[in-house]
Amino acid sequence: MTGTRLRVYDDTRALFHMPDGVIYLDGNSLGALPLGVAERVARVITAEWGDELIRAWNSAGWYEQPRRVGNRIAALIGAEQGSVMMGDTLSLKVYQALAAALDMTRRKVVLSDTGNFPTDLYMAEGLIATLGRGHRLRLVAPEEVEAALSEEIAVLYLTEVDYRTGRRHDMAALTAKARALGILTVWDLAHSAGALPVDLAGAGADFAAGCTYKFLNGGPGAPAFLYVAPWHAEVARPALSGWMGHAKPFAFDLGYRPAGGVERMRVGTPPVLAMAALEASLDIWDRVDLGEVRARSLRLGDLLIAEVERRCPSLKLVTPRAHAQRGSQVSFAFADGYAAMQALIARGVIGDFRSPDIMRFGITPLYVGEADMLRAAGIIEEVIAGEVWRRPEYQVVNAVT
Amino acid sequence: MTGTRLRVYDDTRALFHMPDGVIYLDGNSLGALPLGVAERVARVITAEWGDELIRAWNSAGWYEQPRRVGNRIAALIGAEQGSVMMGDTLSLKVYQALAAALDMTRRKVVLSDTGNFPTDLYMAEGLIATLGRGHRLRLVAPEEVEAALSEEIAVLYLTEVDYRTGRRHDMAALTAKARALGILTVWDLAHSAGALPVDLAGAGADFAAGCTYKFLNGGPGAPAFLYVAPWHAEVARPALSGWMGHAKPFAFDLGYRPAGGVERMRVGTPPVLAMAALEASLDIWDRVDLGEVRARSLRLGDLLIAEVERRCPSLKLVTPRAHAQRGSQVSFAFADGYAAMQALIARGVIGDFRSPDIMRFGITPLYVGEADMLRAAGIIEEVIAGEVWRRPEYQVVNAVT
Repeated sequence: MTGTRLRVYDDTRALFHMPDGVIYLDGNSLGALPLGVAERVARVITAEWGDELIRAWNSAGWYEQPRRVGNRIAALIGAEQGSVMMGDTLSLKVYQALAAALDMTRRKVVLSDTGNFPTDLYMAEGLIATLGRGHRLRLVAPEEVEAALSEEIAVLYLTEVDYRTGRRHDMAALTAKARALGILTVWDLAHSAGALPVDLAGAGADFAAGCTYKFLNGGPGAPAFLYVAPWHAEVARPALSGWMGHAKPFAFDLGYRPAGGVERMRVGTPPVLAMAALEASLDIWDRVDLGEVRARSLRLGDLLIAEVERRCPSLKLVTPRAHAQRGSQVSFAFADGYAAMQALIARGVIGDFRSPDIMRFGITPLYVGEADMLRAAGIIEEVIAGEVWRRPEYQVVNAVT
Repeated sequence: MTGTRLRVYDDTRALFHMPDGVIYLDGNSLGALPLGVAERVARVITAEWGDELIRAWNSAGWYEQPRRVGNRIAALIGAEQGSVMMGDTLSLKVYQALAAALDMTRRKVVLSDTGNFPTDLYMAEGLIATLGRGHRLRLVAPEEVEAALSEEIAVLYLTEVDYRTGRRHDMAALTAKARALGILTVWDLAHSAGALPVDLAGAGADFAAGCTYKFLNGGPGAPAFLYVAPWHAEVARPALSGWMGHAKPFAFDLGYRPAGGVERMRVGTPPVLAMAALEASLDIWDRVDLGEVRARSLRLGDLLIAEVERRCPSLKLVTPRAHAQRGSQVSFAFADGYAAMQALIARGVIGDFRSPDIMRFGITPLYVGEADMLRAAGIIEEVIAGEVWRRPEYQVVNAVT
């Protein structure tokens, strides 16, 4: 934490833009806009790109930006300084992590669970097909992961917090058991970074990746991050071996030679403008305590659960009640959840729907508070108990939800 | 071309920001800032991200953006509508193209040249290692490519315009010969798109990729594009198979099934803010004639060559004089080119240096004109003939050049 500490919500709420009449419970999909972003990006566009032009790679520190930002992310996920690199998307970063891990073992089975976010599974499928060496992706139910760990498993490949249910894996315990069995770990922190304290170094995780447009408020399509444990960083094969990860990118050698450390996981030219937006958002994250964020998140989640269960018995909670097993969202199953969510959004309560029947409400304590939970619960009651969701206009399926 | 036509330079010069005292001859590395960008990006940040929040994926058309922008790029590279997808970086897009191509043939040799941009070669190296099936990357000198085509070659993998010398391959002839021999083609258009007319469909190219931060002025780290010929688009394997390229991304199926057409080449969440900057830049490109751009580029290049050769006999031209063999840059070899370029930059003539001895001057007719060439030549003469480059301050090597 750097700079004067900000109290969660009390000091941070005013640092975000929130449209009138909106209770935003989808910051776990796209975080709200920090007020400093527009000005920061405008400055990078006009004073750096516009005035400095190509010189800005040096003068404005663009070339170092992915590492500099990576170090700020490292502080939020319990990672060693110098172990996190920014770039590309989460799909590509889990691909790099899994490719590097599979290169380190002769075992062939990648173990994941049915609660993993599909892109992680799809990227693994693609990698396994490209490898063509008999690797297999084995999927078990989330609660069966621990029992499925064995000396047959090459890599344990999980998202810490389930995007649908909000169920949280015990990263420390699973990683410890995996290590004892000679299994490498790749953790997806999409719903962890900025949501709860993460301790990658303490857990002994081998690789981790995450996105920055959810709880970290980096903006739509903000760059991803990749963590490589220091004991792998000098030997991990990048697989996506682009020029920015070369030991000497500006020597323009014909042959590839990886840079030292996590720098080798850079691929192409970094997204400078998008990263500038993220940097502005991190100005807030640098100054809050994640323990405080977590405590408030759990309190807000408990409140929403209690209020919704009291008012809407037809909504079935699918998020674990136990704090240790929960991320920073509350999800309910409801057969007509899609229509119900449309009706909620029309009334300013913005959550989202996840197939087949999950109504999902993200908890982002930097800019949502107890009053929001109470108001949201009232509107949820109106929509569910009042059967507002039955209206035809809420049955129409949008292109993207 | 859409909207009222803009005359190259006469109408377009005023649409770019250019700092006082700068003659910018590095638009082939990072294009200059179009005036409309800052406002467009600010609007996307405040009115879309800020006010619409997650809803903007539908309401602001974010989800369709990579395809919509791809169609605008398609118009600039002679590609069919619906054949170009935006996203990620050029390194990743050539990787996807090469992976898809290698999946379509049993042959094992990838033919490229020593003038290809290194990241293309590095990504191929990484792919070949991941494939582990005995593929080989064969490099020949640029002028030997045609003779090296044979039925042993799986994929011809080239950058049309050499980043160092500005030498241009004959895309139509090489592609035709490749096709006749059963060789697939992957063209890197980094120094072509926006520099000269490209006719991918006419040439019968199989795959192509390019970046948008050079001649297309999309901004630092602007997203790349990938072209897949329509006859491959329904069968090409994406290799980097992310959820946005799934047939039904929001069904969240556990198994991957590619979307139809080039849509399958999407990977993760698109960089919305960066793409907005590019869209503002394309507002200019939509309204200019690439034939006119090309004619002016060649005229400006001829002028710079003539003036520099007349004034500085110690600079050796390495760019072909023949128009058909030239891209949109002029390069000279000079043993102390690094120091000389530092001295030029200090005097406002911004080109760049490429190892080992190349002084490179990009020609971007939308915002540089004949007066710039003449002034640049005068300053080049001052630096070279006056041996200004010998001063110690110009011998210091920067981190990035």
